[in-house]
Amino acid sequence: MLYVLDIFGTAVFAVSGALAAGRKQMDLFGAVVLAVVTAVGGGTFRDLVLGATPVFWIRDPWYLGTATAAALITFGAARITRVPAVGLQLADAVGLATFTVIGTQAALGHAVSPAVAVLMGVMTGVLGGMVRDVLAGEVPLVLRREIYATASLCGAVVLVGLQAVGTANHLAVPVAAAVTLALRLVALRWKLSLPIFPTPR
Amino acid sequence: MLYVLDIFGTAVFAVSGALAAGRKQMDLFGAVVLAVVTAVGGGTFRDLVLGATPVFWIRDPWYLGTATAAALITFGAARITRVPAVGLQLADAVGLATFTVIGTQAALGHAVSPAVAVLMGVMTGVLGGMVRDVLAGEVPLVLRREIYATASLCGAVVLVGLQAVGTANHLAVPVAAAVTLALRLVALRWKLSLPIFPTPR
Amino acid sequence: MLYVLDIFGTAVFAVSGALAAGRKQMDLFGAVVLAVVTAVGGGTFRDLVLGATPVFWIRDPWYLGTATAAALITFGAARITRVPAVGLQLADAVGLATFTVIGTQAALGHAVSPAVAVLMGVMTGVLGGMVRDVLAGEVPLVLRREIYATASLCGAVVLVGLQAVGTANHLAVPVAAAVTLALRLVALRWKLSLPIFPTPR
Repeated sequence: MLYVLDIFGTAVFAVSGALAAGRKQMDLFGAVVLAVVTAVGGGTFRDLVLGATPVFWIRDPWYLGTATAAALITFGAARITRVPAVGLQLADAVGLATFTVIGTQAALGHAVSPAVAVLMGVMTGVLGGMVRDVLAGEVPLVLRREIYATASLCGAVVLVGLQAVGTANHLAVPVAAAVTLALRLVALRWKLSLPIFPTPR
Repeated sequence: MLYVLDIFGTAVFAVSGALAAGRKQMDLFGAVVLAVVTAVGGGTFRDLVLGATPVFWIRDPWYLGTATAAALITFGAARITRVPAVGLQLADAVGLATFTVIGTQAALGHAVSPAVAVLMGVMTGVLGGMVRDVLAGEVPLVLRREIYATASLCGAVVLVGLQAVGTANHLAVPVAAAVTLALRLVALRWKLSLPIFPTPR
Repeated sequence: MLYVLDIFGTAVFAVSGALAAGRKQMDLFGAVVLAVVTAVGGGTFRDLVLGATPVFWIRDPWYLGTATAAALITFGAARITRVPAVGLQLADAVGLATFTVIGTQAALGHAVSPAVAVLMGVMTGVLGGMVRDVLAGEVPLVLRREIYATASLCGAVVLVGLQAVGTANHLAVPVAAAVTLALRLVALRWKLSLPIFPTPR
């Protein structure tokens, strides 16, 4: 189930990358590159800092295949139909929720402490989108004012907490992903945000 | 021969980094840093994801020495003569062709699948320039509208294909590099590009 | 002593990251993320290219704890008092000096050549700040016109040199850090800079 969820997250993050490329008027190849980077960026960094090399997409070709296919389909769809402006944010939210639980689980498999597992979950969730935004020439979504990494953090904490009290994976994983997704969607809908840093005068 | 080509590619990419630094009015050290990052960035990422650490420029001091020397010479030359505006793009094209074949070859040496070898070639070719452009505050060349990563992709595919049918290296490598260089130069000259991503409305 | 210095450098770089987040009006979480990235970025890259994985902040939770605490305190302090505009640059200078010696020492512990040790020192010193500036949407401080990486370079060379002639660590480390800090502060105070790259015409 985790594997299916991981491939699913890869696809939706690739869609978000392709849509971001579209907003910047990139060409077909630029869209594929940005989609792939967004889709595998978080997991690549996680594998690198854990020392789990070669990284996952070298070992398993399905990730790159999925991301490329999702980018091409998004590119094609944008030519024949109207993509609502909110599409990028929705795909990003689903990817965030998915990758947060995947990243947390992957880290727990490397026998790290709960705090590091939470951090790995957040990093896996937010890093692909960060690289996407930097490459597209924007300040990353995660650093802007909306609740974003916070949603990822809550989901990762819930997952580690549920597993610590013995909850089975097939229950803990969907609950944690739902927590992240719900928080992010609520924040998007009502424009919630954390306290803003006061400007140094 | 591959080693000589690699050092050559390092030098021309370093020149492209130094010229990019010049366009941003950076100082001597900034130019050296940007040149080195551009020259070794792609190979560093390739070594990291393959797990080939310590990375190549720690094992062999010639890479850093070459990149630094190329940056200093470019800096000096720009003080006493006129550097044509097209210089950056030419150096970048030659570096792209060189590093594409080097990266593909290096990956094949790690017993990866052909698809991963092609990807490693493209990454080695385009990543240094991507980091250069991000650090200089621009959207990377590779993500803009011209045929860039596409040229790298074609060269990598040609190399893997030629080797699959048993072509000797001393023939396959120059042919693949020439394919990439020719495609890139043709695209530059006639401003060819792939289909543009339609703007989401 | 090196460990204490390392934690201290982590804290001041985290402060510089939080202040940079403040200038961009980021929220609480964005400030923490930018602080942590700035504080551990250089060391992470050093560990990755040396192949010292899992990287240091997975092995030792004090680094992330310190960076997070420093970011929260900075955030809180900025709400109740006036942070002088020069605060970011001062924290950055102290972090640069500290991490330069730490990075050089860490590399020497991996039996690399003196030149690579110097480079690792400079990278550990400057990379965190580079990532901070890129994420905040600015051309990195290190690439701009002031003496920055040059100060780091001089400190690293002094440290390697002093150790080569047999100076004890408890003397060589503070001297090298002082050289970097002094050079950086002098450059800041009198706006010294290296020759500027001539614009290609």
